[in-house]
Amino acid sequence: MDESQQHQPRRLHFRKHFFQPFQRRTRVGAVPGKIRSSKTATPTHVERIYFDAESLRESESVDVRSLADVSTGTQWINVVGLADHRMIEMIGERFGIHPLLLEDIVHTHQRPKVDTIQDRLVVILRMTDQQIPLHLEQVSLVLCGNTLISFQEHPGDSFEPVRRRIRQSLGRVRHNPADYLLYCLVDALLDAFFPLLEEYGRTLEKLEDDVTDSPGPIEQVQIRDAKRELTYLRKIAYGHRETIQRLIKESDSRFSEDTRLFFRDCSDHAAHILEVTESFREVVTDLRDLYFTSLSQRTNDVMRLLTLISTIFIPMSFVAGVYGMNFDSSRSEWNMPETRWQWGYPMALAMMGSMACGMLWVFYRRGWLRR
Amino acid sequence: MDESQQHQPRRLHFRKHFFQPFQRRTRVGAVPGKIRSSKTATPTHVERIYFDAESLRESESVDVRSLADVSTGTQWINVVGLADHRMIEMIGERFGIHPLLLEDIVHTHQRPKVDTIQDRLVVILRMTDQQIPLHLEQVSLVLCGNTLISFQEHPGDSFEPVRRRIRQSLGRVRHNPADYLLYCLVDALLDAFFPLLEEYGRTLEKLEDDVTDSPGPIEQVQIRDAKRELTYLRKIAYGHRETIQRLIKESDSRFSEDTRLFFRDCSDHAAHILEVTESFREVVTDLRDLYFTSLSQRTNDVMRLLTLISTIFIPMSFVAGVYGMNFDSSRSEWNMPETRWQWGYPMALAMMGSMACGMLWVFYRRGWLRR
Amino acid sequence: MDESQQHQPRRLHFRKHFFQPFQRRTRVGAVPGKIRSSKTATPTHVERIYFDAESLRESESVDVRSLADVSTGTQWINVVGLADHRMIEMIGERFGIHPLLLEDIVHTHQRPKVDTIQDRLVVILRMTDQQIPLHLEQVSLVLCGNTLISFQEHPGDSFEPVRRRIRQSLGRVRHNPADYLLYCLVDALLDAFFPLLEEYGRTLEKLEDDVTDSPGPIEQVQIRDAKRELTYLRKIAYGHRETIQRLIKESDSRFSEDTRLFFRDCSDHAAHILEVTESFREVVTDLRDLYFTSLSQRTNDVMRLLTLISTIFIPMSFVAGVYGMNFDSSRSEWNMPETRWQWGYPMALAMMGSMACGMLWVFYRRGWLRR
Amino acid sequence: MDESQQHQPRRLHFRKHFFQPFQRRTRVGAVPGKIRSSKTATPTHVERIYFDAESLRESESVDVRSLADVSTGTQWINVVGLADHRMIEMIGERFGIHPLLLEDIVHTHQRPKVDTIQDRLVVILRMTDQQIPLHLEQVSLVLCGNTLISFQEHPGDSFEPVRRRIRQSLGRVRHNPADYLLYCLVDALLDAFFPLLEEYGRTLEKLEDDVTDSPGPIEQVQIRDAKRELTYLRKIAYGHRETIQRLIKESDSRFSEDTRLFFRDCSDHAAHILEVTESFREVVTDLRDLYFTSLSQRTNDVMRLLTLISTIFIPMSFVAGVYGMNFDSSRSEWNMPETRWQWGYPMALAMMGSMACGMLWVFYRRGWLRR
Amino acid sequence: MDESQQHQPRRLHFRKHFFQPFQRRTRVGAVPGKIRSSKTATPTHVERIYFDAESLRESESVDVRSLADVSTGTQWINVVGLADHRMIEMIGERFGIHPLLLEDIVHTHQRPKVDTIQDRLVVILRMTDQQIPLHLEQVSLVLCGNTLISFQEHPGDSFEPVRRRIRQSLGRVRHNPADYLLYCLVDALLDAFFPLLEEYGRTLEKLEDDVTDSPGPIEQVQIRDAKRELTYLRKIAYGHRETIQRLIKESDSRFSEDTRLFFRDCSDHAAHILEVTESFREVVTDLRDLYFTSLSQRTNDVMRLLTLISTIFIPMSFVAGVYGMNFDSSRSEWNMPETRWQWGYPMALAMMGSMACGMLWVFYRRGWLRR
Repeated sequence: MDESQQHQPRRLHFRKHFFQPFQRRTRVGAVPGKIRSSKTATPTHVERIYFDAESLRESESVDVRSLADVSTGTQWINVVGLADHRMIEMIGERFGIHPLLLEDIVHTHQRPKVDTIQDRLVVILRMTDQQIPLHLEQVSLVLCGNTLISFQEHPGDSFEPVRRRIRQSLGRVRHNPADYLLYCLVDALLDAFFPLLEEYGRTLEKLEDDVTDSPGPIEQVQIRDAKRELTYLRKIAYGHRETIQRLIKESDSRFSEDTRLFFRDCSDHAAHILEVTESFREVVTDLRDLYFTSLSQRTNDVMRLLTLISTIFIPMSFVAGVYGMNFDSSRSEWNMPETRWQWGYPMALAMMGSMACGMLWVFYRRGWLRR
Repeated sequence: MDESQQHQPRRLHFRKHFFQPFQRRTRVGAVPGKIRSSKTATPTHVERIYFDAESLRESESVDVRSLADVSTGTQWINVVGLADHRMIEMIGERFGIHPLLLEDIVHTHQRPKVDTIQDRLVVILRMTDQQIPLHLEQVSLVLCGNTLISFQEHPGDSFEPVRRRIRQSLGRVRHNPADYLLYCLVDALLDAFFPLLEEYGRTLEKLEDDVTDSPGPIEQVQIRDAKRELTYLRKIAYGHRETIQRLIKESDSRFSEDTRLFFRDCSDHAAHILEVTESFREVVTDLRDLYFTSLSQRTNDVMRLLTLISTIFIPMSFVAGVYGMNFDSSRSEWNMPETRWQWGYPMALAMMGSMACGMLWVFYRRGWLRR
Repeated sequence: MDESQQHQPRRLHFRKHFFQPFQRRTRVGAVPGKIRSSKTATPTHVERIYFDAESLRESESVDVRSLADVSTGTQWINVVGLADHRMIEMIGERFGIHPLLLEDIVHTHQRPKVDTIQDRLVVILRMTDQQIPLHLEQVSLVLCGNTLISFQEHPGDSFEPVRRRIRQSLGRVRHNPADYLLYCLVDALLDAFFPLLEEYGRTLEKLEDDVTDSPGPIEQVQIRDAKRELTYLRKIAYGHRETIQRLIKESDSRFSEDTRLFFRDCSDHAAHILEVTESFREVVTDLRDLYFTSLSQRTNDVMRLLTLISTIFIPMSFVAGVYGMNFDSSRSEWNMPETRWQWGYPMALAMMGSMACGMLWVFYRRGWLRR
Repeated sequence: MDESQQHQPRRLHFRKHFFQPFQRRTRVGAVPGKIRSSKTATPTHVERIYFDAESLRESESVDVRSLADVSTGTQWINVVGLADHRMIEMIGERFGIHPLLLEDIVHTHQRPKVDTIQDRLVVILRMTDQQIPLHLEQVSLVLCGNTLISFQEHPGDSFEPVRRRIRQSLGRVRHNPADYLLYCLVDALLDAFFPLLEEYGRTLEKLEDDVTDSPGPIEQVQIRDAKRELTYLRKIAYGHRETIQRLIKESDSRFSEDTRLFFRDCSDHAAHILEVTESFREVVTDLRDLYFTSLSQRTNDVMRLLTLISTIFIPMSFVAGVYGMNFDSSRSEWNMPETRWQWGYPMALAMMGSMACGMLWVFYRRGWLRR
Repeated sequence: MDESQQHQPRRLHFRKHFFQPFQRRTRVGAVPGKIRSSKTATPTHVERIYFDAESLRESESVDVRSLADVSTGTQWINVVGLADHRMIEMIGERFGIHPLLLEDIVHTHQRPKVDTIQDRLVVILRMTDQQIPLHLEQVSLVLCGNTLISFQEHPGDSFEPVRRRIRQSLGRVRHNPADYLLYCLVDALLDAFFPLLEEYGRTLEKLEDDVTDSPGPIEQVQIRDAKRELTYLRKIAYGHRETIQRLIKESDSRFSEDTRLFFRDCSDHAAHILEVTESFREVVTDLRDLYFTSLSQRTNDVMRLLTLISTIFIPMSFVAGVYGMNFDSSRSEWNMPETRWQWGYPMALAMMGSMACGMLWVFYRRGWLRR
């Protein structure tokens, strides 16, 4: 990242998200329980990893018709891109996923949630997108027996660390059933939020400096956009925490004791993310106040300085005006005798000068000349 | 929609709704449980659709006396217009609807709710009106055995997609009992809110631009009206979510397992509408702040520029005043010698000019000349 | 109502209520459970109506010693004015009302509540006072067997419609036991709030126009008083809703199934009143903002216009100052040659005039001359 | 109360309370459960009243070693001043009060609470101090069998009315066991808050008038202090309500049915105090707004008037400037012919006068001259 | 503490805490349940105290391999510094602490919490750091049988008073099991917050004076930082209260009746700390308002005084301008006769002087000259 980029506050991507959550879930009047993939969706592509404590089989591109649950070991099917709704329906049929759940998986504006229909547990979360910051794509994780199926909108995900651990057989993942894999994926997904938040923190620090130095319309827009982004992020973070807590509460019988312990740890992380997001929102509220103060401070400074200048000159002009009067000094000794004195003019100038100095001194003493 | 209309923010229809929820439910002192239709109500008109998996019978205008519950298949009776209270009372008698429920159906200021009296389930919701935006008419859906009776205030409704699905036997509607039809109607009613919200979002975006460019009394009124409209809309959306959640919770025994699943999906949509409405309210609050900032920004700009002009001229005027003094230069060498110099006048003009330029330069450097 | 009255916003009666809820319940240190009527209380007067489906007996002024519960039919004893605490104690003894309940009935600063001691159900509510708007007098309704005793502070109440229905045997009131009469009275009491709210709505609309047109100290006081009145009203409305809901919940065994249904309807009305009151409070909050905006808008307008005038004259004065300088044109060709030109003076005037016009034009173009 | 006092708003005593709740409960690192009385505590002094329905024995100053519970009748031991921790420990031992409870009694910064350890019920409340307004001293009431022990910080309390009722055998106090005495004391303590609140209400009314008439730094400090005082008072009032409600809920078996009824009444009074305190807080918030409005109103008034004066004189000065120009009227007919006219000077004066009058008239018409 | 320090408000240490809670718990993608100590952690060092009612054994630096639980008496193992994760893992193995708990202990950004895994109770709290104010280091207390293990980040802690009580056998600590030791440590940790809060209170009082006297950018930054510090502190204090309440609720069976009583007392202290922190937050909010008021007050004062000066001189300058007009008095008697009068000039001066005095008098009377 070069210097110029660092000094330019991160572009704000929020607007389109904010004003377009109104994408209807389906066409108005569509038959419920019937999925219909969006035209802008990425083409569907299926990956598969099968592993147990000893063996590991990875397939890059799998034919959906060959898929079935496994009796031993753990199978992770990763569906990337949601364009091909027929392929997804076929997966749904093969693994007994209810059409309404499939609908939630494909229509990617769901809030984070956990749902169980006919023994199929679905967890829907939002994943940070590595390319587009703050685009949070929907990830759906379905647990069916020994198989875990994950659906994501675009290629590229936060699951690389888990794949590495599976391949290199690090930690417990190869020795545990599919519910532990579910935990690993959820945990990796949450973990990927931390770099995003760190970057966001730096952006806010930068914005704070900008607002203090030169508050302007650009900063106002950035503050507003940051507020909206954080409102959105907070909603997601809140949803994640709730979802994981419900997952722990409702899945007592499905998860092993050990996996439940790990999910409790996971819940702490989700709470941590939520907490950081909320502290950011407070920072933004403060920034807003700071912006208004800085702005009115600047206007006040300008007005005060200008008024000071006027105030200094007005009495001096008055003196000049007095000696500009046309009283006829030939008629009376008392009419403007100063104008006939030897040192009248220098005296008048000196008087004006000392008035200016006096006022400047008073203003200085009262601290009005300082910015 | 032509250009001019697009640039004119949507007319705000709220006022009459806001200040007139005080239409007493009935005349003060009326006998309770006795319905009395409003004078402005639309004439009553009854439609009927009977269907089962194989057959379909539609009647446009039905005589109330011929109505009765059906033993097989599903019957949908749609009552449009609530003017003829005798006809409605007769329907109530024929289908065993308690007078208090009828009262709620006819007095159309109810909040969304679900109620059960003597095995008759009544769901009262608000439907978007296709002609008058933000006029939300009251719709009451009564489930009595195999018959579903819907009451609406005006002709024109959000149920066309359901009728189409019944006629063309799309999806499951023809194969399921009346509780599924209830779901279909509720879902269609909620679906119709999404285009309304989309339009509202565009209106707000437009208003935001207006407020930034030229904040004025019109924008102030629009912001206030938008806030009230959204307060009203939020109340309705909140009521819908609550109603559907109570419907799911309280109707365990009446609904089939499948219908309950669909209603859970429906509850998500209601929550989505509520969420969008609430994010709109936040936008309006922001708009309000933006309005005040823009306004004070503009006033500050004007004052600052005017003060700048004064500040530039005041010292120049002072110089002119000095050389307008009448010190008698014939009396003393020291009295205003400049007035007798060859280049006195041009020098004085040059001095004033350079003062003005100097101040302009200083102001420019401090950024006070920029808007 | 004549024109002048309509233009004068409703007098605000709140102050005395607001600053005097501190009337101690009794003298400090009084013996608890011992009632002591207020010195300003209205003289006590007892009315009695006995009715069953066939017969009706009304007595205007009853001797307390002759009172007793009835074995059939329904008896309504209405006690108006709480001055004579001996009479009230006697009623308490005859109908077995606990001294603490009597204390609550007589010390008329209770919040709305429902209480049951020794099988006597007491409902305490607030009734709109027909003469003094926003004076809400305390009404206590005690249910003892077939007798309903109502206590009110002053003559004149909201119960006329119920009396009419009893006398003319309209609706079910004559055919139902005393719990239905209780419902009728509560319902009539709530109903009487609607005209009050309607009038209040009109007052607020009027106030809004006033604030927009000419915000001044009078409007400020009115807004503040309206806020306090609505705070008070909201507290009462909230109390009514809570009271009726507790009544429904706690009185399962005392009320017939039918009466319970009617009370549920009643609860909706109470919720409606609360809702309207809360929307009024929002309106008042908006009015407050509007007041401040209007005020600062007006000050800004004045300041801007005045500054504009100054700004136009200052450069013109400067020109006049320049030609008022006393450079000696006899000494040098360069000293103020304009003063010796044929058209010097008209040129100078023209210059000043064009400066003024130019600035006016600029100001006009920037929209600063518009209000 | 003389005039001058009435016009001087009540001195605000809060500061020391507000910034010094940090008096550590004991020295840091002290052994827990070991009481250590404060150095500033009042010397300890024990009074005792024994009574039953027939007899009454009062002792002014009792030796602690002679104290013991009584088998019949009721004993009230009143411990005034908490300096002598050995005496208090001895009382604790004799009546079986747990050291932790004694610690709470002696360290007088407890929040209102009720606690039961080993069958000893302790109620800790705050009592208004008759001498120092808003100093609320801690009162602890311990119920041990037939004995009620009260601990208070300073001499002088709110219990006089109860003592009078005991001595004169008024009401039920002599005929009821110690739990009724507990009720009497709690009730008397709460009752004593009402005169305090009445006085506070008058102070706020006075402050409101001051703020409207002449908002200044003194009023600002008073508003802030009032806010803090009310925050503190609200906390106490809230604590009292909670404490009494817990007392009712948790002490079902210890209290007689009758005492429970009286405590319910007591709970209403506590709620009333809380309500009044909260309405005061709202008044203070309003006062704050009023303060800012009054202040900015005044500044605006000053600025406007001054600007008006400037605006009137600037055009007049311009005219004077014009006729002060030195165009040489001997060179041209067109150069300032007015200066040679017969009535030139009076005309110029008249022109200036009419300009001033015209502007004043315009300002008057626009309402800018009114305050 | 010398004078200069006392006048310089306490440096605010918050920033680094506030913007860096984003230290990821571990590297992204790390294997969960695997601890990895931070590079900046302090080297690990283990102390051990064994005691029972009679004996006491202290060891300064213990070999981890020699550690084991004890069958009688109580053992306190204090681990200072978390750099050596192998040593900590070994302790974990020896005392059966689950890896996830160890992870929480080592990754020192946990919120206060209590957790139980496999019969090991862990309490995580924050301890004031004696050297760095407001750096709150994480302390983890693990209860395993008769052994209590405490983990702290840096040397130096709040536990000295407990050590002294153990060594000198003061109070009950030597006679009670390990759960009482846990209470002692928690209580000592909370106690150490009181001096910190006292100091903070003084800092705020000082800041309040500064803001009233000379509000400037430094004060603004201090207010903002104080707000953030208190937000952080409040979060910790809230966490402590919640943790201790959960500890009491969940550990019924592990703690003796007596220890539970002491923990209830402890819970009161935690609530007290929270309450004080919240009252501080209110003070800071008030300071913020005060800051803005002071600032605008000052600007208003400056502007008003300057405007007053202008207003006084403008009419005087006008008079001077009038007598500076060049009406030719030789042409007409009416042209500026004053200029030919004997006392014309002094009269003019006197007129100007009296105008100035008159205006000053008016301004004085209206109170505009006072600050």
